[in-house]
Amino acid sequence: MTFEIKHRDDRARTGTLTTDHGVIETPAFMAVGTVGTVKSIEARELAGFGAQVCLSNAYHLYLRPGTAVLEEMGGLHKFMAWAKPILVDSGGFQVLSLAQIRTINEDGVEFRSHIDGSPHMFTPETVVDIQRSIGPDFAMPLDELVGWPVTREQADHAAERTWRWLQRALNHFDETQPLYGHEQTLVPIVQGSFFEDLRKREAERYAELSHPIYAIGGLAVGEETGKTREAIDWTTAILPEDRPRYAMGVGTPDDLLDAVSRGVDLFDCVVPTRNGRRAGLYTFHGRMNLRNAQWAADPRPVEEDCPCPLCTQYSRAYLRHLFIAGELLAMKLATAHNLTFYYRLLERARTEIREGTFNSWLAETSPIISNPMDR
Amino acid sequence: MTFEIKHRDDRARTGTLTTDHGVIETPAFMAVGTVGTVKSIEARELAGFGAQVCLSNAYHLYLRPGTAVLEEMGGLHKFMAWAKPILVDSGGFQVLSLAQIRTINEDGVEFRSHIDGSPHMFTPETVVDIQRSIGPDFAMPLDELVGWPVTREQADHAAERTWRWLQRALNHFDETQPLYGHEQTLVPIVQGSFFEDLRKREAERYAELSHPIYAIGGLAVGEETGKTREAIDWTTAILPEDRPRYAMGVGTPDDLLDAVSRGVDLFDCVVPTRNGRRAGLYTFHGRMNLRNAQWAADPRPVEEDCPCPLCTQYSRAYLRHLFIAGELLAMKLATAHNLTFYYRLLERARTEIREGTFNSWLAETSPIISNPMDR
Repeated sequence: MTFEIKHRDDRARTGTLTTDHGVIETPAFMAVGTVGTVKSIEARELAGFGAQVCLSNAYHLYLRPGTAVLEEMGGLHKFMAWAKPILVDSGGFQVLSLAQIRTINEDGVEFRSHIDGSPHMFTPETVVDIQRSIGPDFAMPLDELVGWPVTREQADHAAERTWRWLQRALNHFDETQPLYGHEQTLVPIVQGSFFEDLRKREAERYAELSHPIYAIGGLAVGEETGKTREAIDWTTAILPEDRPRYAMGVGTPDDLLDAVSRGVDLFDCVVPTRNGRRAGLYTFHGRMNLRNAQWAADPRPVEEDCPCPLCTQYSRAYLRHLFIAGELLAMKLATAHNLTFYYRLLERARTEIREGTFNSWLAETSPIISNPMDR
Repeated sequence: MTFEIKHRDDRARTGTLTTDHGVIETPAFMAVGTVGTVKSIEARELAGFGAQVCLSNAYHLYLRPGTAVLEEMGGLHKFMAWAKPILVDSGGFQVLSLAQIRTINEDGVEFRSHIDGSPHMFTPETVVDIQRSIGPDFAMPLDELVGWPVTREQADHAAERTWRWLQRALNHFDETQPLYGHEQTLVPIVQGSFFEDLRKREAERYAELSHPIYAIGGLAVGEETGKTREAIDWTTAILPEDRPRYAMGVGTPDDLLDAVSRGVDLFDCVVPTRNGRRAGLYTFHGRMNLRNAQWAADPRPVEEDCPCPLCTQYSRAYLRHLFIAGELLAMKLATAHNLTFYYRLLERARTEIREGTFNSWLAETSPIISNPMDR
């Protein structure tokens, strides 16, 4: 994996992140394909919307279909028919949010499956093994995530453990090999919650690793937007400037642009896909709720110049009808549009950075895309 | 609308059914797009699978989005972005099966919406008006359908009323005009349940109409397969030989081929789409249940030479994983495959008829496609 910064505009930057599955132009957004599929979307459709990379989840894939099946099928790329880069999260967040009973100790996390209650254990080492079986280009190590609010002491304890677990993961990663002939890169996750001194201490410690890529974790766990932005700011100011930074779980369109302005290069979030399935559509003119009666006989596309399957074929009236009738196609078309919007938004951001106009464009665009156009 | 028979092989035939939205090569299958969408499938995808015509439903479209919206949007073809022919059922079956309270009298059917309980009335005349607003190429009139078992007296009464309602529908159809500049054809529905004398009496009466196209109704209402086949046989033997015949609600792959052998030209059924969404896949080698554990690590496509999005991209193992994980994409891919299979099956049937080998092919194929390949 290599990263090259091409243009800088204040703290924002564009670059190329090169993997054995091709090049990602950054800043880039990764659609969430939790169990090896972005919900309702074929892999080739996803590429057509503008996706350069997608994300999946080790907790889910470990439970279903399991690492034995994934190995038999030649890894996740082949299994899901996706030839571009993949990043796979460790499942630390899912153990926190989904698993029924969990016990965290220095060795790792014991939990029961949210599907059948069966007992399992994740350690920094087993998660590396699972990531070898899955075969993503970017593999997240096991971390200890805390929610919000937490005490400084809890956050400190979790950040320290995450650091110790990272050392074990890095060691085990060095002792093991990729299974499918392409390079895998482990991505250290900087924690520290929303305490300035902890975030800075962690960022400094991680910076000294001089690792090729970093993630900022512990975001989007229930905190207000201002706190997310501060935590990103503290961390990116300290991490090595020439390495890609991935803000985990960020975010809404304006969260993305704000983080780009603070030097973040990679994002993932369920917002475009989950909100799309619930009739929330993003456009350059603001958010729309496609269940609203105001769209019932509107013959216009959701967004005039959008190249997605929804906007090039169907009216607002038709999409509203599909949502009101509870039709599956509504969820697919809305997902297709929102992902296309996210990819276009970051493509535009890359252009503005290249032209040195990112901050003025941001100031103009952010208030519009954050607000509903239907009210 | 014109119909031309091109080849005959015993009682089976191929032909061309020409409408203002293009030509349908018969025998042909119409996918069911109840509320103006084949569930989970874009209209352009449907055309790509081989669809020549699709079906929708007046009861559902009348309730949602309603005729006012459909008229504002320029009719169903434009609304659902489908430029090929459409047939719209009257809703007689839905009033029977879905509506909460209904009273049938000589004037028509009073019912309450299954969505919100609101009261409505369908008469032969209002259904014609609704069909004008929807704008299908083929419009079904209001009929009185009976279930099975019924007494001969009930079946007789319903068949007589259907005949009287047809006269009113034909009159009202002549008094009204299409709204969108293309021709619409009303399709008389022959009833008579599973009583030989009634079916024959009705078929003779309808034959005398010398209408350009006929439907065989009252099928697939709970009777055993043998009865469906008899009722089709009695009817096609009497209807004018040079007019297209549409067997409503038929059927499974072997039902289709059997009906083709008895001179049927058009079909619609929820079987490929509904069963697909429930992991039931049809192939030339038999049926498969994609939830079965035997497919968990099978790298082969569902069907080797199938051109559908499922078989050209994904393994049985992946599709099984998607079904087990409850993923929306499973329903879409299975629907895509089953429809592609239905279109290929009838394409093959047309070839066999042209070559005069239909009956021997039928005898060979029917037992295979009717049986599960996983057991």
